[in-house]
Amino acid sequence: MDVIRIALLGYGTVGKGVHQTIQLQQERLQTLLGKRVELAGVLVKNINKHHIEDSSVLLTDNCEELFSLGNIHVVIDAIVGREPGFSYLKRAIQNGTHIITANKELFAHHGRELKSLADEKGVSIGYEATVGAGIPIIQTLSKLLQVNKVKRIQGILNGTSNFILSSMREKGLSFQEALKEAQEKGYAESDPGNDIEGRDAYFKALVLSDLAYGKKPEEEHTLLKGITDITIEQINYFSSLNLRFKHVAEIVKAPGKISCAVRPVLVSPEHPLYQVEYEQNAIAVETTIAGRITLQGLGAGMYPTASAVIEDLVQLENQHSQPVWREDVHLEAEEIEQSLWILPIRLEKQLKDKKKILGKLGSKCLIAKNLDEESLELRDHALEVLGGIDLPQIQGLQKSVKIS
Amino acid sequence: MDVIRIALLGYGTVGKGVHQTIQLQQERLQTLLGKRVELAGVLVKNINKHHIEDSSVLLTDNCEELFSLGNIHVVIDAIVGREPGFSYLKRAIQNGTHIITANKELFAHHGRELKSLADEKGVSIGYEATVGAGIPIIQTLSKLLQVNKVKRIQGILNGTSNFILSSMREKGLSFQEALKEAQEKGYAESDPGNDIEGRDAYFKALVLSDLAYGKKPEEEHTLLKGITDITIEQINYFSSLNLRFKHVAEIVKAPGKISCAVRPVLVSPEHPLYQVEYEQNAIAVETTIAGRITLQGLGAGMYPTASAVIEDLVQLENQHSQPVWREDVHLEAEEIEQSLWILPIRLEKQLKDKKKILGKLGSKCLIAKNLDEESLELRDHALEVLGGIDLPQIQGLQKSVKIS
Repeated sequence: MDVIRIALLGYGTVGKGVHQTIQLQQERLQTLLGKRVELAGVLVKNINKHHIEDSSVLLTDNCEELFSLGNIHVVIDAIVGREPGFSYLKRAIQNGTHIITANKELFAHHGRELKSLADEKGVSIGYEATVGAGIPIIQTLSKLLQVNKVKRIQGILNGTSNFILSSMREKGLSFQEALKEAQEKGYAESDPGNDIEGRDAYFKALVLSDLAYGKKPEEEHTLLKGITDITIEQINYFSSLNLRFKHVAEIVKAPGKISCAVRPVLVSPEHPLYQVEYEQNAIAVETTIAGRITLQGLGAGMYPTASAVIEDLVQLENQHSQPVWREDVHLEAEEIEQSLWILPIRLEKQLKDKKKILGKLGSKCLIAKNLDEESLELRDHALEVLGGIDLPQIQGLQKSVKIS
Repeated sequence: MDVIRIALLGYGTVGKGVHQTIQLQQERLQTLLGKRVELAGVLVKNINKHHIEDSSVLLTDNCEELFSLGNIHVVIDAIVGREPGFSYLKRAIQNGTHIITANKELFAHHGRELKSLADEKGVSIGYEATVGAGIPIIQTLSKLLQVNKVKRIQGILNGTSNFILSSMREKGLSFQEALKEAQEKGYAESDPGNDIEGRDAYFKALVLSDLAYGKKPEEEHTLLKGITDITIEQINYFSSLNLRFKHVAEIVKAPGKISCAVRPVLVSPEHPLYQVEYEQNAIAVETTIAGRITLQGLGAGMYPTASAVIEDLVQLENQHSQPVWREDVHLEAEEIEQSLWILPIRLEKQLKDKKKILGKLGSKCLIAKNLDEESLELRDHALEVLGGIDLPQIQGLQKSVKIS
């Protein structure tokens, strides 16, 4: 069987996620690509800090050594910052290797140059993972652009700053406390400046602007404003008016200019960004024909980012493929999502008299077990209010508890 | 220049939208495809009820005549119902013609058969427009499926029933009154059964199930429940608990079965479907690696649907294409979205003491004109609460008024 040999730059969160996903999805990838995917080598800064089980994988701190492995088909870039990534990727393209990058800062600044070089050399560039991790915004926007023009893009493009704002509002934390929590959870770096001052979101906005408009916003039409000045008092005040602070990146086209602003914005419940909470990201694209299209999902994390990288790999290898009809899909036990009763914790808080609303699933009359008397009383109350109708399911996926 | 000749089945809303979009986007399509797109003929039931300006386009009620035009490259299906569409499309494929369909009922039932036939004949099928109109769910889901397995799909797949539920809640209308409004606005057919009883959403769920799982849900695991029994009292009661009724189609995979339910569900503010209002559609896909991805947009209408059809056309003609880098984009004056002050009407209602919150746009200190004294007073009040921070923009795109 043919082999696709990969060289990986970086073995941090994203690099490890890519490696693990290749291992876990090997069978699936073979079916899709008709080829085995093999990690040939990994470039790291310090080889003493890393260990790779599989001894056939070269672990090196020397780019020359990695690139001289030979038969490398794709270089996957999972390091951060403009350099040395840019030099490495230029070299890779010049060697005739396809590249896939998750490096937003690099691609924001040098994407166009890399693309020209890649066109010249007849290789491909995948960069789905640079914006919104597992959210397939690059491919979706590309598809929309075939027929539509883009009027405006608004997005929550940084999970860390969004996490902080959600956490302040929901838990009443100060900015510093919420930042600390984000750092403890591993969302924010020890130097969180790029996230909370909007630079990370700005890099992603540059990538989207390049894709949508063929150019970046001019510097004089760029506004960057972080979330560090927002106080819990302000959050509470606007929250009482049903307004939420979101750290929104906005790119707008006007005659002769493209403007870009990353700044705190007050959002009302009608806006699709209102309910985008914690580490979620979302991008709303206003188009001329299809209207406004919004995509939402996890904007960071090992596996969502790896998913985007591997999608690029499949795309690159399989450009002629049409949507495939799946054969029967087998889900592992832990992968199965049951349509159980779910009762959002927040709902409890909101309920007057501390009652809980319960119901039955469709017409199947599931009886929830392990309920206290209060819950049962509440179910009866809900049944009474609902009269003859079958009680519908109560849905609230975040922060839910299962009652079974 | 090469020509792509198209035969169009049906000249209702979708058919007209496709024709107009081809005309309006001719230049763009030529650039993208390197070919001119030409409408060769249109099949309608009654030629006396239709008129097409361009006399070079054949208008006929005879499918034989349409198909005998010769050199037809793509047949676009914009009629409804399983027959005669299915017979026509089989014929088209047998003639070696690519097909693109917006016909969900047909594709839900015969998609797999058409696909086999198309594979045999080496032609392509596009069906992006069958689900969610302009929302590119088919292509996005296809892309996610390359790496992910799907655990569950939840969607608001019918704009009419969603419009009715929003309208009941926001305007206090009865079901019958809201239905009448939807009919007057052209959303609901004179026989709205497919929409309000969930069959239309069910057809779309079948298409998604076939794509995600390679098969349809079994009939014994299917539940269909309409919204006709929901009363305004129920809506108001749950609304007071921050819960909204949504007509949700859900497809879940469990060992040995796929279940599908279309039914009213109570949704809490944490769920991405909560703020999907009026004619909007949304689809939340829970995947094994990328997490939950939600897409939202206009799920019906002439142009969103046409956009999806034309995207399929470009895809079909241009399968080797990579995301293109745009050249400088020119937007017409009426296409430009300005970052004006927008003050959601709903916000006013929610504000205590009928005050309005205003602010200034970023650091640019836009002064809103034509404001009454009350508004100005409120702006001062907001400035006071916000203290030293630059006032952020207030966003709420639906039902907004511009103040300039």
